[in-house]
Amino acid sequence: MTATTKLHIPDLIQKKRDGHEHSRAELEALVLGYTRNEVPDYQVAAWLMAVYLKGMTPPETAALTLVMAASGDQMNLGDLPRTVDKHSTGGVGDKTSLILTPMLAALGLTVAKMSGRGLAHTGGTIDKLESIPGWTSELDEAHFLEQARTIGLALVGQSKDLAPADGKLYALRDVTATVDCLPLIASSIMSKKLASGAHTVVLDVKVGAGAFMKTLEDGRGLARAMVDIGKHSGRQVRAVLTDMDAPLGFMAGNSLEVLEALDTLRGHGPHDLTELCVSLAVEALAAQGEDEQQAEARARATLSDGSALAKFRAFIEGQGGDPTYVDDPSLFDVAPGREEILATSSGFVGKIDALSVGRAVLVLGGGRERKGEAIDHGVGVELLRKPGDAVQTGDPVLRLYHRDGRGLDVARGLLTAGLTLQATQPAQEALILDRVN
Amino acid sequence: MTATTKLHIPDLIQKKRDGHEHSRAELEALVLGYTRNEVPDYQVAAWLMAVYLKGMTPPETAALTLVMAASGDQMNLGDLPRTVDKHSTGGVGDKTSLILTPMLAALGLTVAKMSGRGLAHTGGTIDKLESIPGWTSELDEAHFLEQARTIGLALVGQSKDLAPADGKLYALRDVTATVDCLPLIASSIMSKKLASGAHTVVLDVKVGAGAFMKTLEDGRGLARAMVDIGKHSGRQVRAVLTDMDAPLGFMAGNSLEVLEALDTLRGHGPHDLTELCVSLAVEALAAQGEDEQQAEARARATLSDGSALAKFRAFIEGQGGDPTYVDDPSLFDVAPGREEILATSSGFVGKIDALSVGRAVLVLGGGRERKGEAIDHGVGVELLRKPGDAVQTGDPVLRLYHRDGRGLDVARGLLTAGLTLQATQPAQEALILDRVN
Repeated sequence: MTATTKLHIPDLIQKKRDGHEHSRAELEALVLGYTRNEVPDYQVAAWLMAVYLKGMTPPETAALTLVMAASGDQMNLGDLPRTVDKHSTGGVGDKTSLILTPMLAALGLTVAKMSGRGLAHTGGTIDKLESIPGWTSELDEAHFLEQARTIGLALVGQSKDLAPADGKLYALRDVTATVDCLPLIASSIMSKKLASGAHTVVLDVKVGAGAFMKTLEDGRGLARAMVDIGKHSGRQVRAVLTDMDAPLGFMAGNSLEVLEALDTLRGHGPHDLTELCVSLAVEALAAQGEDEQQAEARARATLSDGSALAKFRAFIEGQGGDPTYVDDPSLFDVAPGREEILATSSGFVGKIDALSVGRAVLVLGGGRERKGEAIDHGVGVELLRKPGDAVQTGDPVLRLYHRDGRGLDVARGLLTAGLTLQATQPAQEALILDRVN
Repeated sequence: MTATTKLHIPDLIQKKRDGHEHSRAELEALVLGYTRNEVPDYQVAAWLMAVYLKGMTPPETAALTLVMAASGDQMNLGDLPRTVDKHSTGGVGDKTSLILTPMLAALGLTVAKMSGRGLAHTGGTIDKLESIPGWTSELDEAHFLEQARTIGLALVGQSKDLAPADGKLYALRDVTATVDCLPLIASSIMSKKLASGAHTVVLDVKVGAGAFMKTLEDGRGLARAMVDIGKHSGRQVRAVLTDMDAPLGFMAGNSLEVLEALDTLRGHGPHDLTELCVSLAVEALAAQGEDEQQAEARARATLSDGSALAKFRAFIEGQGGDPTYVDDPSLFDVAPGREEILATSSGFVGKIDALSVGRAVLVLGGGRERKGEAIDHGVGVELLRKPGDAVQTGDPVLRLYHRDGRGLDVARGLLTAGLTLQATQPAQEALILDRVN
């Protein structure tokens, strides 16, 4: 780190301004200097704009990611075998982690994962799991590592000091028109994954009107950038690109999503959700060198033979949760208030806007606007029909689960605005659009 | 100004990032907001880098310049006839203003000019004039305008609040690698000229290894940008591009330069200095619509008929200076210490580095490192030979005027390092390289 103090920051800004490639030492001077409040924000802001307009090479992006990953705590997973992590670039009703991680454990991989809570319209895996009484993400490191070793699955809350450079840089990008820049997005996501320590990372890159990446081409670019970061940093990174025009599965809301995950772990889940989990599991196994056809058969078997469900039960119990909830889903608290949104014309469901569904769950009380707010695990939205389904006037399309009417009017308005009915059947997009590895 | 508060700064940064043209209202929001500390420096830094990499159109550059000019005090020259100002983009031993401004007054134009003090290796016109006891640049506005009306020449110290946006932006550019950007350089210079109020501005754009603009092409670009600002803001702006590989004339240092200026005003000045002053005077007259051949004859006549000298004497007396110094140059305090630098080989003088000469004057005590420091008007450097002159081993090439040996060793080292002797005669560059209007 002694080299960093010798570098003159304006020279580094000039270097990027003129389109040259930074060395790792230069990126340390800029990014760690900024994290330590030694480099002022105005210099980093000018540099970020130069990065935005001049780009970064793949090795440079990887170096930036490693520097950001090393800016705070780094999880040491030690000698845990075949560690794997998963990341999704945001999504509503995305309960994939609840299903995929026990599948991976059942397949002999180790998931020792940090996860976050939800904010605004996106739900967090920890919030969902807290629908099960007693379950906690507050594990000490010894417990976390031991559970990962014995069960193959442990989940802990994200360290406040995980890649602090990323948090600082993101806040500055947000006010300097430098957010939508591929190397900066890729390094932001991957810095936290690298700091979390897993050897393999599978990525679900969402594409669509409601996603950060609007087009398949943009999504491919981001996936490629993140996979390249893996290549340059000694990790195995693989991505699937998935359509995100509608929520995954039928349920949105904390308890509702865990219930749907349990159905899926029993082999009775929604088709789209099941296929995505199988695809991501295949990527994780392929990253270990497994044959893909064999990997797919093994992945599907974890859902039919009960092995993934058994891992989920052990995981819940290991982190203090009541395992009888896994055995008897009727125990879950689901808000008793019900209201349905009906089709106002006959034809087909065109779009169900995922963002509107996410916001509806939020106003019903199932999410939080600010960090630290309590949430109601029982409320949510069920999709009774999915895009492409035929409907007659008066058919129920969406069901709201509310608590004493809280937020009901606003949620109804959001869902009605986000629902498109049309005369002709919409073209059905494949869920898995592409793979990058 | 009410519109400025409605604009969202990140949107403006994004607009420039994406290569679009700002409106004047947008530039006001950014630049005046920054000047008033309402827009934070990190946002302006990101914007400056976007300007650096995406450029500005000529009308946009003019709008920026007008916004900067309007950020503080603006001199109202009212109904003064044919007002003209002059600016040089920096130079060592550049006593042009001392000669040109009384020539312009003698030609019937009005010079009501703000000037600055010297800093580091560049001398300031006010410092030079203070070689004459009693002369002051601290005039109240009424005196300044009345003297400009009656004599045609008045010179006042630069207002602290002249284009404060420029000072703030320059300080930020200096630490964010956004200094050498044509529209920003041009608007920085011209904002102060526009705020100073003259209708016509003649510019001396220096080109060469020692100048800010290293090549003729770069110099032409800067001249064009400044002339264009004039066109878009209702001013007459004309530029000459001049070679700045060696100091102008023979003298560098405060009293020494005034003495050389007096020689020139008497018609006995160095050829290069005289020609530059005549060229700039021709531009000023041509800007009024005068025929150039006639203008040149009239300009030369002011140096042969004593009219420019008479204006200079009246100007000195009008601002409290002892006019007998103009009549009897032997009154000037010139430091008695002398030392010569001799040719160490026979051949020709190749280069005399202007920057080395400027720094030598500084260390001898004739300049200041920090604002407010007192200076010694009597010290300096005389060029006994100019580039292209033949020399024999042992011939004196440069003469130092020092006070009790102060700074002599360092000055000698600087001058020796900046002097090139060579076997063949160097190609002689023309002083006036081009004109832009």
